Amino acid sequence: MKTLLKNANIITCDGDKIIYNGYMGYEDGKILFVGESAPADFKPDEIEDASGNTVMPGLINAHSHVAMTILRSYSEGYSLQRWLTEKIFPIEAKLVCEQTYTATLSGIAESLRFGTTSINDTYFFMDRAADAYLETGINANISRCVMNPEEGEDFSDDYRLKEEIELYEKYDGAGRGQIKVEMFPHAVYTCSKGYLKQAAEIAKKYDMPVSSHLCENETEVSECLAKYGKTPVEVYADAGLLDKPASFAHCVVLNDNDISLLKGHSIVHNPISNLKLGSGVADILKYQKSGINIALGTDGASSNNNLNMFEEMKTAALLISGISGDPSLADPYGIIKAATLGGAVAMHRETKGMLKEGFDADYITVDVSGPHHIPNHNIVNNIVYSALGGDVIKTVVRGKTLYDRGEFKTVDYEKVVYDMKKIKKELF
Amino acid sequence: MKTLLKNANIITCDGDKIIYNGYMGYEDGKILFVGESAPADFKPDEIEDASGNTVMPGLINAHSHVAMTILRSYSEGYSLQRWLTEKIFPIEAKLVCEQTYTATLSGIAESLRFGTTSINDTYFFMDRAADAYLETGINANISRCVMNPEEGEDFSDDYRLKEEIELYEKYDGAGRGQIKVEMFPHAVYTCSKGYLKQAAEIAKKYDMPVSSHLCENETEVSECLAKYGKTPVEVYADAGLLDKPASFAHCVVLNDNDISLLKGHSIVHNPISNLKLGSGVADILKYQKSGINIALGTDGASSNNNLNMFEEMKTAALLISGISGDPSLADPYGIIKAATLGGAVAMHRETKGMLKEGFDADYITVDVSGPHHIPNHNIVNNIVYSALGGDVIKTVVRGKTLYDRGEFKTVDYEKVVYDMKKIKKELF
Repeated sequence: MKTLLKNANIITCDGDKIIYNGYMGYEDGKILFVGESAPADFKPDEIEDASGNTVMPGLINAHSHVAMTILRSYSEGYSLQRWLTEKIFPIEAKLVCEQTYTATLSGIAESLRFGTTSINDTYFFMDRAADAYLETGINANISRCVMNPEEGEDFSDDYRLKEEIELYEKYDGAGRGQIKVEMFPHAVYTCSKGYLKQAAEIAKKYDMPVSSHLCENETEVSECLAKYGKTPVEVYADAGLLDKPASFAHCVVLNDNDISLLKGHSIVHNPISNLKLGSGVADILKYQKSGINIALGTDGASSNNNLNMFEEMKTAALLISGISGDPSLADPYGIIKAATLGGAVAMHRETKGMLKEGFDADYITVDVSGPHHIPNHNIVNNIVYSALGGDVIKTVVRGKTLYDRGEFKTVDYEKVVYDMKKIKKELF
Repeated sequence: MKTLLKNANIITCDGDKIIYNGYMGYEDGKILFVGESAPADFKPDEIEDASGNTVMPGLINAHSHVAMTILRSYSEGYSLQRWLTEKIFPIEAKLVCEQTYTATLSGIAESLRFGTTSINDTYFFMDRAADAYLETGINANISRCVMNPEEGEDFSDDYRLKEEIELYEKYDGAGRGQIKVEMFPHAVYTCSKGYLKQAAEIAKKYDMPVSSHLCENETEVSECLAKYGKTPVEVYADAGLLDKPASFAHCVVLNDNDISLLKGHSIVHNPISNLKLGSGVADILKYQKSGINIALGTDGASSNNNLNMFEEMKTAALLISGISGDPSLADPYGIIKAATLGGAVAMHRETKGMLKEGFDADYITVDVSGPHHIPNHNIVNNIVYSALGGDVIKTVVRGKTLYDRGEFKTVDYEKVVYDMKKIKKELF
């Protein structure tokens, strides 16, 4: 089926190109053309008139724990370490597989509602999460988040690593590449050196991309320095986790040597979660200048408290001006590209993040008819500073419309709501 | 007409009271009761079932320049002083009265859409802005923003002060108290000492509340210290502007003496505008502990870029944890009260900011059925951290529904959109 989108103002993320009243054609999930007109010989089966709305690549949420939707607004006012050990880990220990499946579906609905077309999701019970992704059609890089603080060299019996390998064997590449399986050691404070090394070796053996939490706050870094005499980045480098381009969430506390070690890798900036947990503000402009790719992520809903990449874009832009004191440093188009192309690079998705011939037809239509978009002097500025996630009226993934003006095409939303209420009663 | 609202989860802002499955009755714009049931003898003419949604006091935007909607997304990347002198003032010099009227209507539509029921609006051509408020029904404290940097003692011929007095005489108390006229000297860097003194005297003579921009950034404070050997707060105190409880926007840069001088006054925190213009972050918790009332505001749409108090609430909460490094300091109910009751105090609106017998029926209904509200462990946390302005489905001001599920009852929205596009062509 050939689809033609017309009269769209298209933020392509291909360089700084914007096409006004533009045309985009796609077929079998791939973009055929994007431009000021359609080729004369293109005969669409379906025409959509975007009539002055803004069309852009689907947002890429490069770091999340999607099933943590079940913990949204459950616990407030804790720093990272207390929040994890006193509130989150005890509830997570009670979670069962089917509960995380439902909570993942809830997070998928929210992501589609707010224009996210690809998500990096690390948690546990990820086989059923993979089923949720395959059923609903959203792109996902998934991983069984692995952790083991015990010292040692041989972790071949570790059940988490076994689950991760099973996940890889069953789901990597599933859905014609919809799913990609990554290796995600939780953090330097939950994994021993030997365990990190083994995780790196498995990642190499199976050619899995590596992601992890890294240098999220001062406590993590100072405890690591006290324990090993090295920064978490140095410990990761020693373990072999930096041998190939990898992606690291947070990176709020990096020294200059850490930054140079991370050159060629990706940092996923989670500005809202970092503020909410009191971790601080990552200096993403400095990292970017040092050759590090910047992506954006929401983190889990429980430290945010939603999965809305529009808020991450605005907050990221505001923090650049607000913390530096220099408003000229915030570049709205650059922020949009971090939320699209930067995420594609971090997630090793070479055909995503731009609207361009040959790329995947992952895009969103943003309704700009609301009073907060008037007058629209600059559609890029409006997306970053004025738009709400709720302005998304259409979310298309690999050419398939998954959300359209209030309607989820692949999520049984009423059932999800019913099941989430049931789980809340069971767990809390 | 008697109205009964039922099955609402009500955040009252009266202490920390929340009423689940609550009832609220109102008549002639005044709340008759709020509680777990309705009095047996209450016979409503109209019943609204809020069916599990969250009801709360209308949001009070305690600092804005509403007609600056016309400048939304027009200029990015400037610090306060360059932004004003190079971008904003030159365009404002070209604005004509009917253009600001239309731009005010656009801002009113946006405010109603996002649940704001009262707004503090200081700009120029305010007589037509007053007409816009009276036509649409939203509460407004208005002022002809006055400025004159010339030295002197007698400014009785100053056309801005004359306009301000005319505005007061014509509109103060209009619409049965819907409009209140304030005195708003622009700032210490745009008003001479003598002019500030005269503004204070006029405010006293007419018993107008005083508001102003104050200590917005380091440049303002250091230039003031260089010129007068005093901080802007001290200059304001000398001028008599602190003689009665007044309201000051921004206050990012205050020393301890300034803070003690401002005890008993209000500070309007504009976290988004302060970040966007690179001004910094106001330490509102410190101010609050020192006996200063804290309200929230959006500032003008051009330094935000919208009029969405939900974003101000979330950003204010995030900055408390993020900048202090201590997440336990952010109190979500306290943030909601700053956006409601704190605004009412700042705007001298004694019967607003709480849902309580005898108070004005200014309230909003927030739809919490979207995926970003599920599961709803805590309705207060969800309002601050998860909700979007777009979740507001009903905005009621003094008992009259002004916005209801996509429909503006008092704004001709299509005409506003048409006129705003026309103005954009004329001006830019």
